[in-house]
Amino acid sequence: MHSFKELIQLFEEKFAAILPFPQVPDSLYEPCRYFLQIGGKRIRPVLCLMGNELFGEIGEDAWHAATGIELFHNFTLIHDDIMDKAPLRRGKATIHERNGLTAGILCGDVMSIYSYDRLANIKTSLPQILHLFNKTAIEVCEGQQLDMDFEQRDDVSIADYIHMITNKTSVLLACSLKMGALLGGATDGNANKLYEFGKNMGIAFQLQDDYLDAFGATEKLGKQNGGDIKANKKTYLLLKAREGANVAQQQLIKDWLCHDGEEKVSAMLQLFKDTGADKACREAVERYSEMAFNCLEEVAVVSKRKAPLNELAAYLLQRDK
Amino acid sequence: MHSFKELIQLFEEKFAAILPFPQVPDSLYEPCRYFLQIGGKRIRPVLCLMGNELFGEIGEDAWHAATGIELFHNFTLIHDDIMDKAPLRRGKATIHERNGLTAGILCGDVMSIYSYDRLANIKTSLPQILHLFNKTAIEVCEGQQLDMDFEQRDDVSIADYIHMITNKTSVLLACSLKMGALLGGATDGNANKLYEFGKNMGIAFQLQDDYLDAFGATEKLGKQNGGDIKANKKTYLLLKAREGANVAQQQLIKDWLCHDGEEKVSAMLQLFKDTGADKACREAVERYSEMAFNCLEEVAVVSKRKAPLNELAAYLLQRDK
Repeated sequence: MHSFKELIQLFEEKFAAILPFPQVPDSLYEPCRYFLQIGGKRIRPVLCLMGNELFGEIGEDAWHAATGIELFHNFTLIHDDIMDKAPLRRGKATIHERNGLTAGILCGDVMSIYSYDRLANIKTSLPQILHLFNKTAIEVCEGQQLDMDFEQRDDVSIADYIHMITNKTSVLLACSLKMGALLGGATDGNANKLYEFGKNMGIAFQLQDDYLDAFGATEKLGKQNGGDIKANKKTYLLLKAREGANVAQQQLIKDWLCHDGEEKVSAMLQLFKDTGADKACREAVERYSEMAFNCLEEVAVVSKRKAPLNELAAYLLQRDK
Repeated sequence: MHSFKELIQLFEEKFAAILPFPQVPDSLYEPCRYFLQIGGKRIRPVLCLMGNELFGEIGEDAWHAATGIELFHNFTLIHDDIMDKAPLRRGKATIHERNGLTAGILCGDVMSIYSYDRLANIKTSLPQILHLFNKTAIEVCEGQQLDMDFEQRDDVSIADYIHMITNKTSVLLACSLKMGALLGGATDGNANKLYEFGKNMGIAFQLQDDYLDAFGATEKLGKQNGGDIKANKKTYLLLKAREGANVAQQQLIKDWLCHDGEEKVSAMLQLFKDTGADKACREAVERYSEMAFNCLEEVAVVSKRKAPLNELAAYLLQRDK
């Protein structure tokens, strides 16, 4: 069994070894290499490997899956950055900012194909694995579309929001675990429990991210405090504040959404508190975390094999478990 | 055996039947449906079906491949239109023009995943088929990148140009034929001959397209005569004219590239003639066509089974064969 940190290290080595993109055309592959080496936490491939190791030694198929999943995730980031008009990713220039729109689109496209080419090496139940992956990939696109749509909509409910973040973020975490598990010979029952574990953990993580963006310490990597507030992002906090606001608070929220600057951040933080949105958000994080850990509990494998997954979830959800 | 026209008809029916994208999110799938119904010649799926029927009855796998290939082709068109800043495709608004950049990017992305989900249904030699498809898809991206790069370069050779159009256009035609053939049980030898047939036919077709854009009749679908000249596109004709030009003609070409308008078109057409580029282009079309038909000739199947492929090639290359 490997720890979370060992698996990251092993993955980085494998990923670097199998991924020397061709040299030509340099205008296509140089930005791809650049983007992959600016890092990332490699959570998804590590989940895939952990899902696999839960049932035995990590096999070749799990490595193919893990590398394919990480390429796919980076493809979505490259395209999301274009849609979000983001100049930076992890503190570094995004591809479309650094190399132009064409490079941004094409590097994403070619990376998604390389992702599928990794998956095509899988020897076990390839059609089943591909359908699971495709279903997930489609949901990720749908989630991103919903996220974009929500920017223009004023009737987004909490349920809509949970549905969006589930698709945009959580299902790929869930799929990573399930693919690893299936490739390790897990029963459908266990594989599905792991899927639910990953999905709920992803939702909890995203809600926590919303919370920390508003109330977390300012020294968070590459992010300024209240970034979501400044951008009028429809986070769980804003949606919940609107839901719980009285008429006067509704008006205040509406007014502040038309303003900019530091004053806006502190005013909105106060409104999140006054409406109970902050508490509701913390409770939702707790609720989804509990569901996640309960699902993991139900996976029919001796507890000590689950230690790395428990450790990873506790790290992501900032809990001592 | 089916004729070219029959196969188009059969494909359209099958394609419409299997492709009711989900209703939600409408902002994602409505543009996808729109784009697929504005048409196209469906050459690639028909080549796949013909490659399959060359060796027996058309099988289910060939239908999966044909529909997957057509989805992939449309995905590339949607993204190419963004990169080319094209407002129209087949006389209709492009997705990014009609629904915005985000929809253009995401509809392309999701369509490429649906394409892979069609392919995942293939029962015969799935890993081999996927690797062939992925290799081709990567080449298509590389070809598009080269096409974009060429716009900024002044040192593009004829060999560079042939390499670019081979990747951007021809390999997908070739791959379609080869996939159909392999799924029909063809030997590697026959499948590779068909690949070469498709590749050379594709190159000949693209060079003919360059020629017709300059010298063809003006009533061509959705295109005005001399469109490439007006856009300073580095076609075979322009590259060859530069190559064959004397010092005075070099200067004339350089000057005209800085101008706009109808006068430019007639001046460049004259320069294409004076430098012998027009003749060289016609000869190149002929040369690649010959190579294509020779490859088809060498496929070890009784001649009459090749009739539909001969018919299709003759139609595309405007020959009586």
